[in-house]
Parts: sequence; C-alpha cells; structure tokens
Amino acid sequence: MADFAKERNWDQFHSPRNLLLAMVGEVGELSEIFQWKGEVPKGLPDWKEDEKVHLGEELSDVLLYLVRLSDICGIDLGKAALRKVELNAIKYRASKNYSTNDDSTAEMCG
Amino acid sequence: MADFAKERNWDQFHSPRNLLLAMVGEVGELSEIFQWKGEVPKGLPDWKEDEKVHLGEELSDVLLYLVRLSDICGIDLGKAALRKVELNAIKYRASKNYSTNDDSTAEMCG
Amino acid sequence: MADFAKERNWDQFHSPRNLLLAMVGEVGELSEIFQWKGEVPKGLPDWKEDEKVHLGEELSDVLLYLVRLSDICGIDLGKAALRKVELNAIKYRASKNYSTNDDSTAEMCG
Amino acid sequence: MADFAKERNWDQFHSPRNLLLAMVGEVGELSEIFQWKGEVPKGLPDWKEDEKVHLGEELSDVLLYLVRLSDICGIDLGKAALRKVELNAIKYRASKNYSTNDDSTAEMCG
Repeated sequence: MADFAKERNWDQFHSPRNLLLAMVGEVGELSEIFQWKGEVPKGLPDWKEDEKVHLGEELSDVLLYLVRLSDICGIDLGKAALRKVELNAIKYRASKNYSTNDDSTAEMCG
Repeated sequence: MADFAKERNWDQFHSPRNLLLAMVGEVGELSEIFQWKGEVPKGLPDWKEDEKVHLGEELSDVLLYLVRLSDICGIDLGKAALRKVELNAIKYRASKNYSTNDDSTAEMCG
Repeated sequence: MADFAKERNWDQFHSPRNLLLAMVGEVGELSEIFQWKGEVPKGLPDWKEDEKVHLGEELSDVLLYLVRLSDICGIDLGKAALRKVELNAIKYRASKNYSTNDDSTAEMCG
Repeated sequence: MADFAKERNWDQFHSPRNLLLAMVGEVGELSEIFQWKGEVPKGLPDWKEDEKVHLGEELSDVLLYLVRLSDICGIDLGKAALRKVELNAIKYRASKNYSTNDDSTAEMCG
C-alpha cells in the first residue's frame, strides 16, 4: 500500500484523518449493499455471483484503507489485532454461556 | 475468529448484518479518538503511549469484525483484497501525476 | 446549538471535520443499540422503556451534530432537506410500483 | 416522509435496521465529500457553489433517513432532541472553561 501510494504521488493525501474519512466512505458503500435486504442468512445462499464479487470489493476497500491508516499512524495492525484477541480471550471466558440477555455479549470486541 | 466465536456460543449472534452493525459501532469508536483533534500529522508524534495503544485496539476491533463478517459471508477477504489491489493498479496508472483537483483521486479505492 | 457551543467556549473544537467525525461516532453508538438484535419490527414492541429512551438519546446526538455541522458549513439544512424531498418526488414517481428487484429503490435518497 | 414512502409502496423496505444501514450509507457519502480535503475552515470559503449544493444534498439525505428511522421506531425525535439539549446543559455547565485536554469535552453529546 505504501509503495502503491508513493508511485502515484498520493502520500500528499494520506493523512490520518483523510484516510479515516475515506474508510468511513467505504463502510457506507458496504452498508448500501445490505441496506434494503432485511436479515441475510450466513453464506449468502441467494446472492448472485456478481453481488458477491461486489461485496468482496467493498470489504476489500475497507481493509485497504484500514491497513493504510494503521501504517500512517505508526501502528502495527497485525500485532495489535493479535494482542486484542488475547485480551478478548481473557475478558470473555470460553467456558461461560452467553445469551442475548447478557450485557457482556453486547460488546464482543469492546 | 470462528473458533473463538464457537467456543463462546456466539455463532447465534454472528449474522451478516449483526456483524456489519457491530463493525459500524467500532468505526464510530475509532472516529471518536480523532474527533476533536483537528488535523493530525503522520506518525502521531504528539500522542501519548496510552493513546496509541487505545488507537491500536480500536483499529483491531474494526479488523476483527471485518474478517469475521467476510468469513460469515463466505468471502475470502485476503484473495478479494489482492484482486482489488490489482484492479486499482490498472485503474490508476503509476506514471500519472495526481492532484487534489483530479477527480480520479477522489476515489482511490472506488 | 451555536449559543450552547459559544457559552462553553466550544467554538474552537467545532470545525467541519471535527463535527463530522463526532457525528460518525454517534452513528456508531446508534448502531451498537441495534447490533446484536437481528431484525427488529417497526415500533419496537418488545423493547423496554429505558432502551427506547436510550435510543432517543442516540438519535438526538446524531441530529444535534448534523444540525451543528450544517450550520458551521453555512448550509441551511431545513431548506436543503425540503429541496431534496422535492427532487426525490420528481426522481421517484408516486404512481410507479417499486420492488426489491428494482435498482431504483436501492437509493431512495440517492 | 411517511406519506412519501406509502405512496411509493416503500413501507415494505422501511424496517428499522434497513433504514439505519441506509443512513450509514449516506453518512459515508457525506464523508467522501470531506475525505481528501485536509482541514476545512468554517463556512467553506473556498468551495464552489456546486460543491456546497452537493454537500446540502448529502446532509439532507442523512436527515431524511434519521427522521424516518425515528418515526418507524416510534420515537418523537424533536421531543427527544430538546430533552437531550437540556440534559447536556446540566452535564456541561456554561460557566466552566473547556480545553482540548479536558476529557469531558471529548463527548459533548455523550
């Protein structure tokens, strides 16, 4: 991503808040795919192939901006994410049963 | 992520739109970190260590939900992202000079 | 909102992009209310009173930042919204029948 | 908004979470307007007239979905917003001086 931006003289645009707002824009495009569909089952069994390709592109756009934002902020995203998983494993014990009435489930990544 | 959710009986909550809204929630928490700061320079030179740790956590939360959402939708996010980078390389030629007045730069990941 | 901000010396924080990110933060909090609920029927018949009060607060937070953002940008939001409704009335004729397979419905406010 | 939707047979699409995701989509489009601009001064002195018109449209789209979402949820948004302003007036005293180092300012609408 860093090389890609440098080769196109895009470093001038890639400030932290510019990238954050660009990512919010992509999250909006991702949401538009799901907006009028009502509840959607896992695996998207009824979606056409081109809808799935489009979905893959929007998920990717969010990822690419997230990776670039992290890099520009000097954050090692891979390292931070693994650490967060470890923290979550401590916070939410595997042995416990969670239900929708359990507030602790409300923020799985909280 | 799939094992983590299964061990906690969280599969029941992890529908595509639930995960999407959870991700939007995390994007909101990420935005809150930047909301009153005005423009922020690359590398966040003036940020305290605990602010950077917090930022790494929020970036990770977005990533974790994004990965889980992709998986639940049956999308191979790594494959889709590499394909998107290739498409972007064709769409935005490296030899061209981009400026803020150039509409094509408005959607680097468009 | 303008008086409220001025009395608290908040004008210094209320730049367009600060307010926009603050609004994104509130949209995130609004999404968190709905994130693990699956599909929710109109009128929220099963919600407890305090959940509805909380929802009203988050909806209000989005509105307050939206109004403030518009004002700071010099946009007359009431006027702009009425104009948008008129444009929508022309774009989407009332006589037509819309269905989920109809792309034009995908962007009711597009 | 309710009449407008009814006349177009759109009630079938206007569930709470559909409208919420549609609003997130519009927040994304609003963010795209600001994404590559860096810091933007109040009043948008350097923006062209058509950019301001476009901004007014995107702000309106967020408002229209917010109003419709509130209505579908059975929330009186005007009443809720006035109540929230009163709560904020109690939470954040006017006599106090706020600064960027003051955590309480981090969530003006918190």
